[in-house]
Amino acid sequence: MEYYTGVTQKKTMEISELLREAKAGDTVRVNGAVHTIRNMGTVAFVILRKREGLLQAVYEEGTAQFPLKNLKEAAAIEAEGVLEKNEKAPHGIEIRIRSVRILSEPADERMPLAISKWKLNTSLEAKLNYRSISLRNVRERAKFRIQEGLTRAFRDFLYGQGFTEIHTPKIGAKGAEGGANIFKLAYFHRPAVLAQSPQFYKQMMVGVFDRVFETAPVFRAEKHNTKRHLNEYTSLDLEMGYIDGFEEIMAMESGYLQYAMGLLQREYAKEVEILGIELPKADRIPAVRFDEIKKLAAEKYNHKMRNPFDLEPEEETLIGRFAKEEWGSDFVFVTHYPSKKRPFYAMDDPDDPRYTLSFDLLYKGMEITTGGQRIHDYKALKEKIEARGMTEEGMEQYLNTFKHGMPPHGGLGIGLERLTMKLVGEDNVRETTLFPRDLSRLEP
Amino acid sequence: MEYYTGVTQKKTMEISELLREAKAGDTVRVNGAVHTIRNMGTVAFVILRKREGLLQAVYEEGTAQFPLKNLKEAAAIEAEGVLEKNEKAPHGIEIRIRSVRILSEPADERMPLAISKWKLNTSLEAKLNYRSISLRNVRERAKFRIQEGLTRAFRDFLYGQGFTEIHTPKIGAKGAEGGANIFKLAYFHRPAVLAQSPQFYKQMMVGVFDRVFETAPVFRAEKHNTKRHLNEYTSLDLEMGYIDGFEEIMAMESGYLQYAMGLLQREYAKEVEILGIELPKADRIPAVRFDEIKKLAAEKYNHKMRNPFDLEPEEETLIGRFAKEEWGSDFVFVTHYPSKKRPFYAMDDPDDPRYTLSFDLLYKGMEITTGGQRIHDYKALKEKIEARGMTEEGMEQYLNTFKHGMPPHGGLGIGLERLTMKLVGEDNVRETTLFPRDLSRLEP
Repeated sequence: MEYYTGVTQKKTMEISELLREAKAGDTVRVNGAVHTIRNMGTVAFVILRKREGLLQAVYEEGTAQFPLKNLKEAAAIEAEGVLEKNEKAPHGIEIRIRSVRILSEPADERMPLAISKWKLNTSLEAKLNYRSISLRNVRERAKFRIQEGLTRAFRDFLYGQGFTEIHTPKIGAKGAEGGANIFKLAYFHRPAVLAQSPQFYKQMMVGVFDRVFETAPVFRAEKHNTKRHLNEYTSLDLEMGYIDGFEEIMAMESGYLQYAMGLLQREYAKEVEILGIELPKADRIPAVRFDEIKKLAAEKYNHKMRNPFDLEPEEETLIGRFAKEEWGSDFVFVTHYPSKKRPFYAMDDPDDPRYTLSFDLLYKGMEITTGGQRIHDYKALKEKIEARGMTEEGMEQYLNTFKHGMPPHGGLGIGLERLTMKLVGEDNVRETTLFPRDLSRLEP
Repeated sequence: MEYYTGVTQKKTMEISELLREAKAGDTVRVNGAVHTIRNMGTVAFVILRKREGLLQAVYEEGTAQFPLKNLKEAAAIEAEGVLEKNEKAPHGIEIRIRSVRILSEPADERMPLAISKWKLNTSLEAKLNYRSISLRNVRERAKFRIQEGLTRAFRDFLYGQGFTEIHTPKIGAKGAEGGANIFKLAYFHRPAVLAQSPQFYKQMMVGVFDRVFETAPVFRAEKHNTKRHLNEYTSLDLEMGYIDGFEEIMAMESGYLQYAMGLLQREYAKEVEILGIELPKADRIPAVRFDEIKKLAAEKYNHKMRNPFDLEPEEETLIGRFAKEEWGSDFVFVTHYPSKKRPFYAMDDPDDPRYTLSFDLLYKGMEITTGGQRIHDYKALKEKIEARGMTEEGMEQYLNTFKHGMPPHGGLGIGLERLTMKLVGEDNVRETTLFPRDLSRLEP
């Protein structure tokens, strides 16, 4: 029997530890994957890939007590050597290798992709087929560090605003949004579906915690094959009670975006630099009515509106351009979406029930958020369901919640992969999804 | 057009704001759900349920400028009144109501459960059937605040240890653990399954980020109908590379548990008190071999061992008791599980390949974690697959990852609902699951 008392200090050092704690001339130990070897004859540069970045190790005959051929690209090694300053090396340091311990070797040294190139020059298809290899490229990897920052910021910001994190079920008896876009499965011989969103659950939990959020997968059986659609994605969801209006929800999202950009600047500066991201300003996000901005954009760009009650992707692009040119903002809230385009639980605008107290947030011309105020009155909700010719079947518990009192409330859902895509400047949402699921892709 | 510039300051105050910023005699505004009304004749106590706890509002004829009958239990209200100290009231304060604004009213005042009682005295079945109502009980609600703390601690601790958060797909072509316990679904006319665990993906991502974690749902089509099994639960998963041995993984989990108990003490003290939780010590967690502890427990408690290669729930209970009595610990790592009881990717102990370099963590006699070192050598992995008579079909990308080099690594998965259950002193995992999914329950 022995005792575990907490994290053990490793003898190897990470890059930040080398920079903070070691000085030139110190003997240090590091581990990493051999990213690439550049053999210059008398000397070889062995670039190690570590989680914080690349680290240059220098192999010199005489200093190193082993033959260079012992080192293979894609091997995992532990090296001991002397730290030296070198302005030309990543982070301004390098390790003159003395000895090495091979931790593991690849069975096949021929990599399917040239991951050590700065920019991985290959097709999206190849990147996705070899996902666990393509992400070893430092730039590819950085996108998902940025994605972590966006998720982390969402939670940290909301904890500070009195929200409680919830975990709602992904298997259920009925979808929240209804419609045909639902994955069906057999649940012990009963029909079941995969959750399209945590909508019903987060609303039900507003009556318990006032403010709730969830960061979890959602499933959409949509047959879209576009650059912006996925059949499984991560939704950053929040729902908040006791709101004075749906404006409070947009204010909360503005606060989140400000917090997120601040966190990325502070904690993810390395990745922001690697990807050359210009962090957008979120300190003043314009909001404009759906019907107004449609007209404004149509006039300015001479675009023919086809449907007054819907936004086509092309129109979103124009609205994004309009917001940038006229208001200097990458973000724009489009408010008061038509009632017929919103689910039954959306609250209609009492001033004009053809529209709802709802919004989308566009970022560089693409919808990344849908949100709005919900109906909180039991009778009003029942009437809306009836007016739409819907059945209450499977919604009994949801409706029951309202019967026993619910505060005025609303919320939103942010598509994490889309937000990441726009932030890092990609144009296909698969680029910022670890393992995308679409009409044709179910693996890896 | 208008601008959103961040979170708007509300005119209503939360309990912590009242305690921090308001003084006796101040006129304040608060909102909340009417939890209960105790009418004493000349005076009535209107208890408001707010996210931070209960708040006592006092209705006195003369002071209040409206009739008491305007207030209904389960209504959402906003009240204005004068703050006074009152040692007998929750948090030592109360609000003498002057005016009130009704935000929403219940359609039916007769609540299905007596949620305002301190302890909700009803069956688990009723609690789950009326989940959105039963959780309005302050004690019931507190369990899920504790659950938030455990999840939050997991992430915060791991960010600090250089881990990257990942989001892996829940729909896939093949399950990681194999076997029959997989939910199947039709994915655009192709067969697909729901992920039993993020195992393959987190391993693949160790080659990219060195250290990764995920907090997400997993799906098990197990036909167990017990107090400890769910068919969907939240798994706290981590996987770490460049380990010197599987001991490092246990050390990491010890570190997490210490961090979590610290966070609960600091940030969730209210809920810890409400539930009367005695936070367990995690500063010294004993670890003992599977074969040894089985013998020790069998001898001490005169228990007849039926299967030397498996742990029955009854044995786990005895081992938990042993750890408590002999080593004074609620936690105990049981190490070196038999190879035949672990999946193919588990690394066998080179000293005795009948056992693996793996562990379970028991908490008060129940398994809450399974972890261990994984095979990182491509050939060894292929051989193990062959030796087990398994097919490589559907695992090509997983295996490819190893072909191109992987560091020694291992990881673990923690069942969040079980950890919460044991911590708050419940004996059925459904008590600490917001919306449990089991053999018979698919709703709400």
